Amino acid sequence: MAGPNLLIIGAGGVGDVVANKAVQFRDRFGTITWAARTADKLAKKAAAVNARYGAPEDSPFIAAEPVDARDTDAVAALIEKTGARIVLNVASPYCNVAISDACLQTGASYLDTALAEDEFTIDIPPNWYEHKEWPRRPEFKAKGVTALLGMGFDPGVVNIFCAWARKHHFDAIDSIDIIDVNAGNHGKYFATNFDPDVNLREVTEEVITWEDGEWKFIPHHSIWQDVTLPLVGEQRVYSMGHDEVQSLAVNFPDTPRISFWMGFGEHYMKVLEVLDTLGLTSSVPVEVDGQMVAPNRVVKALLPDPASLAENYTGKIVIGVDVSGRKDGQDKRVFIWSTLDHKENYEEVGAQSISYSTGVPVITAALLMADGTWDPKTMVNVEELDPDPFLALMPEVGCPWQADELPTDGSWPYADGAGSPSAAPLSQQSAATDRGAT
Amino acid sequence: MAGPNLLIIGAGGVGDVVANKAVQFRDRFGTITWAARTADKLAKKAAAVNARYGAPEDSPFIAAEPVDARDTDAVAALIEKTGARIVLNVASPYCNVAISDACLQTGASYLDTALAEDEFTIDIPPNWYEHKEWPRRPEFKAKGVTALLGMGFDPGVVNIFCAWARKHHFDAIDSIDIIDVNAGNHGKYFATNFDPDVNLREVTEEVITWEDGEWKFIPHHSIWQDVTLPLVGEQRVYSMGHDEVQSLAVNFPDTPRISFWMGFGEHYMKVLEVLDTLGLTSSVPVEVDGQMVAPNRVVKALLPDPASLAENYTGKIVIGVDVSGRKDGQDKRVFIWSTLDHKENYEEVGAQSISYSTGVPVITAALLMADGTWDPKTMVNVEELDPDPFLALMPEVGCPWQADELPTDGSWPYADGAGSPSAAPLSQQSAATDRGAT
Repeated sequence: MAGPNLLIIGAGGVGDVVANKAVQFRDRFGTITWAARTADKLAKKAAAVNARYGAPEDSPFIAAEPVDARDTDAVAALIEKTGARIVLNVASPYCNVAISDACLQTGASYLDTALAEDEFTIDIPPNWYEHKEWPRRPEFKAKGVTALLGMGFDPGVVNIFCAWARKHHFDAIDSIDIIDVNAGNHGKYFATNFDPDVNLREVTEEVITWEDGEWKFIPHHSIWQDVTLPLVGEQRVYSMGHDEVQSLAVNFPDTPRISFWMGFGEHYMKVLEVLDTLGLTSSVPVEVDGQMVAPNRVVKALLPDPASLAENYTGKIVIGVDVSGRKDGQDKRVFIWSTLDHKENYEEVGAQSISYSTGVPVITAALLMADGTWDPKTMVNVEELDPDPFLALMPEVGCPWQADELPTDGSWPYADGAGSPSAAPLSQQSAATDRGAT
Repeated sequence: MAGPNLLIIGAGGVGDVVANKAVQFRDRFGTITWAARTADKLAKKAAAVNARYGAPEDSPFIAAEPVDARDTDAVAALIEKTGARIVLNVASPYCNVAISDACLQTGASYLDTALAEDEFTIDIPPNWYEHKEWPRRPEFKAKGVTALLGMGFDPGVVNIFCAWARKHHFDAIDSIDIIDVNAGNHGKYFATNFDPDVNLREVTEEVITWEDGEWKFIPHHSIWQDVTLPLVGEQRVYSMGHDEVQSLAVNFPDTPRISFWMGFGEHYMKVLEVLDTLGLTSSVPVEVDGQMVAPNRVVKALLPDPASLAENYTGKIVIGVDVSGRKDGQDKRVFIWSTLDHKENYEEVGAQSISYSTGVPVITAALLMADGTWDPKTMVNVEELDPDPFLALMPEVGCPWQADELPTDGSWPYADGAGSPSAAPLSQQSAATDRGAT
């Protein structure tokens, strides 16, 4: 029996990965449709994916359908037309509300990878999910419609790592530090790895972190630490606000401290300081010769297209959660992490690892939705679901993960460039290597 | 007998200085009119100047008249209405053509402080004066209308310094190095001292310099030297293209090397590198959400208004020409320079020294035009005129100058912070201190 029909919305870097991965696992889905705003560009992309996996000319594995993803009716009509039962939203976060509304209307399951955003709004107060998502949860629940919020890597897999740590390794968790480091090099003077608009807002907002059981607000890039991660070695990471801190604070109510940390190099920090101090990262429009212009849109127009970076990207990303707490009366610390290699990912699907690390979890979750393993029939953040089937499946879809027990004094035992501390990993799941490309 | 009626066009920082200075020397002019685009702002500024010098309510020293300075007919009508015989153009260089055409039409004498520019054009080939100015010289000559081009400090006074050096100190000049250093501090993260639009274009254009008797093109900020100037000490100055190099190359045909150097600090260079590398200094419009937007206009909209810097500006500027050549068979080197102090200038006229150093030469020249000392009845660059009366008068108007004989080995004999080398100056002219403000 063929699985449910799939509708993928969004054809940026993550969309590319999701489309490739959906086609790789096409035997577990019904029809696969890929929708985005620009018909020409989308048609070319879909043709390339069909060609990569050897689809017959008259029977493509993936079909292209142009859509305005900010138009609920248009999305609902496309869901009806394609008979999609699962909608994977990997479009801009500005489209989230329209797409999830279309799912509510049609009963199709919904998944996204980041919080809904408004284009010209910054520094939203916590809890971020209370603005657009959670108020609509009762409606999803009443109609029995599944919605998985924030199901990329971070948010997404890192939330699931936390759920797995709680389920298997801790009686009580005292702190969660999510650490996201891109140690890759794209060779450009400056570029963002996803939409510059969204990315520059994210990195320049006031940092909201969870400390002593309450929200704490600090200026961006004002707190940092140097960590020594597996494979990529010593890295300076800065405290930053991020979606998953918002939901974990609610779903891990007994954990007093939850922080997100992102790595930034010196050169990046220099460019960001200039752009930010001058107001060029702002999404609040200013008057320029009688027109209203958002400065960050101008910067976006000048920066390289994130998709263009993939071809020459080298190096690795490492994303993990550093969890400390107690088990059986003893202090315990576990680091659960994944790594991907930009060049390997590009060779497989034509995208860099930031996109790849977001797209693989999307299809992993879609496979669990397709076979009924994950079907909460309401809106959830993914840490609310059983982590085990997801983490068992993700390596097969393309992303390995590993858990290491670390010293409880907070030190990092990875020798520079090593993939494991001196002690053996608690758990190690390698990625599958045969992806079915012809 | 009252002098000729004066029309000042432009109410930026330089306009402020010119208006103040015109009123200080009002006994040598007829009526004084100040024109600019924005009526309200101009009326307030004119009222402040009248108040500063104690003008009677019913008989102001300076009158305000709104005008669109890019509209030749409007400017010509205002010249007729005010009976102006001298028009001082201190508006944006985008207005030069319209204002000088209005002078040609009406026969009024014309003066400007910088080359005419087009808003969205960069990297104009040499000779810059051949694009807009010099092709119209025959018409000025035929009608006997005086036009003084580039009569600020640089271009302007530095050209006159060169003429003075040639007249009094050299038989032959081998090299002219114009050096412009602002050692002041405005306390802002980043700001330009005049229109950001014009300024950022100037500092990021390809550098055109005169070397071995021909034009040489080098990337901006690619050549620098460390100099030790009087009063402000050691400074790093970068080779830059500038108006005066263009005219001096023609008017000093036997001088093989003419360069302009501007001082830039490390922090300025960092910000400029980011803005320039990302394309944010470009005046070439790009598409942003369906609108065409020039990136440098967005930066301009975000940077502090140059006029707002004056209040907290401290420190000094030093601008001079380092001339080397031969006199009576001997090698000779002379440095002719001026200095101004931001705080002193602000206290006198409410403007910082970059504006002050441009405005004082404008009124010095206007006084020479008014009494007939300078009246070439054609278009000239100011090095074509007799430098002596100008340099005799400028200190009285507010800007001192000094000439020092320096070692011919190229070294700088100023002990850090000293105002003279060990040998006595060749010439020293202090500024007058009583400016007649009430």
